[in-house]
Amino acid sequence: MYSLTVCDHIMIAHSLPDPRFGPAQGMHGATMAVEATWRRHELGPLSIVMDIGEATSMLATVLDALRYENLDEHPDFVGRLSTTETVARHISDKLRERFDESEFAGLQVLLREHPGAWATYDVNFG
Amino acid sequence: MYSLTVCDHIMIAHSLPDPRFGPAQGMHGATMAVEATWRRHELGPLSIVMDIGEATSMLATVLDALRYENLDEHPDFVGRLSTTETVARHISDKLRERFDESEFAGLQVLLREHPGAWATYDVNFG
Amino acid sequence: MYSLTVCDHIMIAHSLPDPRFGPAQGMHGATMAVEATWRRHELGPLSIVMDIGEATSMLATVLDALRYENLDEHPDFVGRLSTTETVARHISDKLRERFDESEFAGLQVLLREHPGAWATYDVNFG
Amino acid sequence: MYSLTVCDHIMIAHSLPDPRFGPAQGMHGATMAVEATWRRHELGPLSIVMDIGEATSMLATVLDALRYENLDEHPDFVGRLSTTETVARHISDKLRERFDESEFAGLQVLLREHPGAWATYDVNFG
Amino acid sequence: MYSLTVCDHIMIAHSLPDPRFGPAQGMHGATMAVEATWRRHELGPLSIVMDIGEATSMLATVLDALRYENLDEHPDFVGRLSTTETVARHISDKLRERFDESEFAGLQVLLREHPGAWATYDVNFG
Amino acid sequence: MYSLTVCDHIMIAHSLPDPRFGPAQGMHGATMAVEATWRRHELGPLSIVMDIGEATSMLATVLDALRYENLDEHPDFVGRLSTTETVARHISDKLRERFDESEFAGLQVLLREHPGAWATYDVNFG
Repeated sequence: MYSLTVCDHIMIAHSLPDPRFGPAQGMHGATMAVEATWRRHELGPLSIVMDIGEATSMLATVLDALRYENLDEHPDFVGRLSTTETVARHISDKLRERFDESEFAGLQVLLREHPGAWATYDVNFG
Repeated sequence: MYSLTVCDHIMIAHSLPDPRFGPAQGMHGATMAVEATWRRHELGPLSIVMDIGEATSMLATVLDALRYENLDEHPDFVGRLSTTETVARHISDKLRERFDESEFAGLQVLLREHPGAWATYDVNFG
Repeated sequence: MYSLTVCDHIMIAHSLPDPRFGPAQGMHGATMAVEATWRRHELGPLSIVMDIGEATSMLATVLDALRYENLDEHPDFVGRLSTTETVARHISDKLRERFDESEFAGLQVLLREHPGAWATYDVNFG
Repeated sequence: MYSLTVCDHIMIAHSLPDPRFGPAQGMHGATMAVEATWRRHELGPLSIVMDIGEATSMLATVLDALRYENLDEHPDFVGRLSTTETVARHISDKLRERFDESEFAGLQVLLREHPGAWATYDVNFG
Repeated sequence: MYSLTVCDHIMIAHSLPDPRFGPAQGMHGATMAVEATWRRHELGPLSIVMDIGEATSMLATVLDALRYENLDEHPDFVGRLSTTETVARHISDKLRERFDESEFAGLQVLLREHPGAWATYDVNFG
Repeated sequence: MYSLTVCDHIMIAHSLPDPRFGPAQGMHGATMAVEATWRRHELGPLSIVMDIGEATSMLATVLDALRYENLDEHPDFVGRLSTTETVARHISDKLRERFDESEFAGLQVLLREHPGAWATYDVNFG
């Protein structure tokens, strides 16, 4: 199995309005450092998983909709808890609209919310 | 599959008394940077794998028994080789006493013993 | 010259309401990874710059006032631009209320706002 | 499952002579930071996956054939695209000539070509 | 003193044709991870050292002339040893053509050539 | 001003027998990740601060005397508090026996004792 990972980041505001989130219930924010990983069983004609420029551009396009946003007011998160796990899943879903899954074995999206904590969403295709 | 990782560290002394460990046979020590990762197939009601505060606290509690210890004299390691792999397994076993495995898909414990070497112990549940 | 650095982080929301900040004008957020560095010309009786536990605790206490906050509504930032540089200066000023500068040569506060950008405020004493 | 990872790096020149590689078609170069990970289902008599010194030495020996090389002229890459994925596979193949696979569950080779992009080749044994 | 740092990277080929460089005499390459730091005594009207977007763009523009290049054939390095130190100085000189030094206290350019080695060139203004 | 930094690490045991060190009074240990930085006002004939191989080798030679040691029994630390700051100073002193200071402007030794804390000792020459 081969994989390729590219990185980017978003800086968002949000609140997590459930008493169990304690101090994170109020409006606060996070830099989410994003790592997107595509997996393939075998390499294609150019001996790559995906072109790094194309992967970087695809991830940037998906993240553009979230950059400098208040997720509490973002149409994709209104009324939902925008936890790191949920945002990872959202980015994964949006990436999957942009490539042909039949060529790949899976996709992982990792979001680091601070230097000591991160979450992933991972999906296998086919 | 979703995952959540939180980090902490311990600073321990130990010796590895087998000739095959060469210079590590004598009393020396290590900072072991610890990353604990919980996996779940689906998120729960709060849209999280586990509360980051709870995960951090659970890991800290388990590590408290090892912080600033000489593992050669620690009851859980007397007479055993306290390799990085063994310590990773030990931390995993102790963590598993503290949460309900039926809610999770697996657990990984990673220990970095220096900037260029690390070990993991990974277990799938159910 | 000796120095000691300890790390922590805050996760804040804020806006930067000046047209020159472009997309950062609206409500967004950041994880600010904080590194505080104390400098001394000579070590004291315990052969340290400062006790790491004490330094970590002092930094945590100062950061507690900012954790999970919306800086736009924070009394120390209302009506001011809470740029990374300004927050670094603020943390430095608050730290300086908590130790005896006559024992130290200087203090640096570094804030990483994302993996590829950070700011510092550095002051020499005496 | 247990794993052990050790790190090293190579600094190579190469070109990627296909129009789809854009500016990377010409002679350029890369530092490839290498992480090799061995996996085992159970630990052996010394309670390790592999001796760190032995793993580091094995990886270094394999990388010695690539250090400071122009891959366009390297016998193992002449006429082939030396993409990061291909180099990862090559290092994996060369490592596999040097240990007994029957003792291990798998091997992963990760190559970071810059701070924001990396590739892996991963193989399960048996 | 305040500072702001932004990051980027280049991937270059070069040779260091002096016998004292040993294996680095031949054509090889490097990813040079670049950190550019501007210093100011006092912040300006927007409470910043420099706009992060502007700093990132300025650094990218300077690096564009080096990306994916063979420095042995690059007009700015023909006949010169393109050591990491020299490239750091070169990037610093090129950056200084693009901002008004009277507003700043100094500039540092740091280049990481591999995970365990880096060089800087630092200049104070005025 | 130019600088060159190279990295290595040591894994040592020690105790800090003063009540004010709390749990660190007993025998414990640390991985100390070491960064040694040489500074020069101007580059020499090869356009470098120091040869990276030579710097790496010099640092390794100095660290060899500390690797896998119990500092409580090490002749250079018996009866002294082997704090991170003291070890940094010790490494600096030992390095300075091995190069001609008249060619350099200064030397910094940085020791990371865990991912969130590090100390430096810095000296200017001449």
